[in-house]
Amino acid sequence: MQATRSTPTLEDVAKSAGVSTATVSRCLNSPDRVIENTRMRVLRAVDELGYTPNFGARVMAAKRTFTIGAIIPTMENAIFARGVQAFQEELHRRGYTLLISSSAYQPDLEEEQIRALVSRGADGLLLIGYERNPEIYRYLERQNIPVLVAWAFSDENDRPSIGFDNCAAMRELAKTVIEFGHRKIGVISGITQGNDRASQRLKGIEDAVANSLLDPKIMGIIETPYEIDNGGDAFEELMKNEDRPSVVMCGNDVLAVGALRRAQQMGLHVPRDVSITGFDDIELARIVMPSVTTVHVPHREMGQKAATQLVKMVENESTGVSTELQITLRIRDSLGRIARA
Amino acid sequence: MQATRSTPTLEDVAKSAGVSTATVSRCLNSPDRVIENTRMRVLRAVDELGYTPNFGARVMAAKRTFTIGAIIPTMENAIFARGVQAFQEELHRRGYTLLISSSAYQPDLEEEQIRALVSRGADGLLLIGYERNPEIYRYLERQNIPVLVAWAFSDENDRPSIGFDNCAAMRELAKTVIEFGHRKIGVISGITQGNDRASQRLKGIEDAVANSLLDPKIMGIIETPYEIDNGGDAFEELMKNEDRPSVVMCGNDVLAVGALRRAQQMGLHVPRDVSITGFDDIELARIVMPSVTTVHVPHREMGQKAATQLVKMVENESTGVSTELQITLRIRDSLGRIARA
Repeated sequence: MQATRSTPTLEDVAKSAGVSTATVSRCLNSPDRVIENTRMRVLRAVDELGYTPNFGARVMAAKRTFTIGAIIPTMENAIFARGVQAFQEELHRRGYTLLISSSAYQPDLEEEQIRALVSRGADGLLLIGYERNPEIYRYLERQNIPVLVAWAFSDENDRPSIGFDNCAAMRELAKTVIEFGHRKIGVISGITQGNDRASQRLKGIEDAVANSLLDPKIMGIIETPYEIDNGGDAFEELMKNEDRPSVVMCGNDVLAVGALRRAQQMGLHVPRDVSITGFDDIELARIVMPSVTTVHVPHREMGQKAATQLVKMVENESTGVSTELQITLRIRDSLGRIARA
Repeated sequence: MQATRSTPTLEDVAKSAGVSTATVSRCLNSPDRVIENTRMRVLRAVDELGYTPNFGARVMAAKRTFTIGAIIPTMENAIFARGVQAFQEELHRRGYTLLISSSAYQPDLEEEQIRALVSRGADGLLLIGYERNPEIYRYLERQNIPVLVAWAFSDENDRPSIGFDNCAAMRELAKTVIEFGHRKIGVISGITQGNDRASQRLKGIEDAVANSLLDPKIMGIIETPYEIDNGGDAFEELMKNEDRPSVVMCGNDVLAVGALRRAQQMGLHVPRDVSITGFDDIELARIVMPSVTTVHVPHREMGQKAATQLVKMVENESTGVSTELQITLRIRDSLGRIARA
């Protein structure tokens, strides 16, 4: 905001409320330590004068700002919306406000946003996935900002996180796809560079194929950003092969819905001519016809538990424990069985 | 963040960079006024020490934080995602970082978030729609925070805004629906209470019906929150009437897609048995089959222009001008013609 002459000070508030500046900052920082009607008087003065606590004494005095920051890779297609919504609702119940940034899957932009949220006084941060410049983690440690990683969980990583094993989840789905008789698997993956969820999901398919005794083959892998039209283009590309895949496994539901739509535009019947699978179980996967077989991610549970955990970290009740959530498969009409030859 | 003993001060930075504290804060607040290698030296010290400018001198000295706040009603279904994405991209080009809050269509929550963004030092705010507690507008004036309203435009309101006339836009669509031969119109509206976009869209349908010489009738109006399943439930309700509507006009694409899906589950053919229309032209409307006739909102243009305008306001180059964007109809397969009797 503009630092104008008229910007009221802590002293102005104290004067107008007829209390000491110490009482004012106590009201702002630990209201429970101030008796009701003094607090009311002060807060009324704060409001009347339009005093903004962080400009001046409060920031210096406050132990907390009761603001949590979250940076999500994208707001498109509501991939993170449901989880973030639950995260916010739980934070709100606990008296914290959520500020969100969207990094558009750009690490440099995420870094800038992390620094902005810290400079704006965020008490703690929720970040998606583990993978980022180590320097930024060091910066956050120096700043004493608790960080909780979400949407990912790995035994190998001891950073506090809440999420699920993207690799194991996709491996489960791939095993089912193979059990359904599919031997020719096309893959449309998100961009794996800098996105550990995407690379883990891809690895899950490769593991299932490598470990299967039924001799399935990966006919082709295309990496593309998570957008509906990209899923369609990649699908068309995969179907150009002489030897067409019988199933196209996609890195998320957005790519799967794009592939499904394109298949229909190409006059292909799903699943008779080709099966399609996704990941995430966002609304999009339920709404299209046929509905998309996918991996159900417990978005609301993840968001709610992330809030509970991060607030504990901020309030020094926990140094951060990691939680692995269980995923389940949603077998829907977009996945068909291949009749035995 | 935690105010620990170890938190470095402006003096620490000055000492370690071997410059005066004045030089440090000049580096942070108007870097262009400091020669390159001094600036580099200071910024390195800032980074090494993990000094967070806003805790201490900077906030007091800075004229701006280069942070813009935006509060959107929801992150679900990507209703605002595309516009906000464009808004952020343009802000980024201009050196500003965007912090977003989602109010879940709750005025009290929005108020809390506005105060949080202001306390966190937002230079300016983007708010959706005009309608909110006048007290909050007075608060923002006292705080000298420029506010730009988006997703709405009205000649009667002189508050700076960028958007479109929701009433006129829906009226256009309703006129087309009537021209297509529809006389029995069912309406599924968003909750109009506290949502001027929703009430304006509803008014647009009512105006078109009132002004038409073709004697169309509104068979029923159901208000429900913007969620896919709510659209389905409302649709089922409307179809219980003895005298069924031939078209169901929905307040947005989310409700329309829910209605469409439910119609198909009920064994109704769209548009042969019933036509359905939406509003917004989000991806969802294109992806379902049949694709949904809707009002195309220029989301990216609105977001980009909102950023340009708001930055001008923040930098005192403008006190805020209002911009009306033109909308267009997207007539798709979900709207059919009624054969003359």
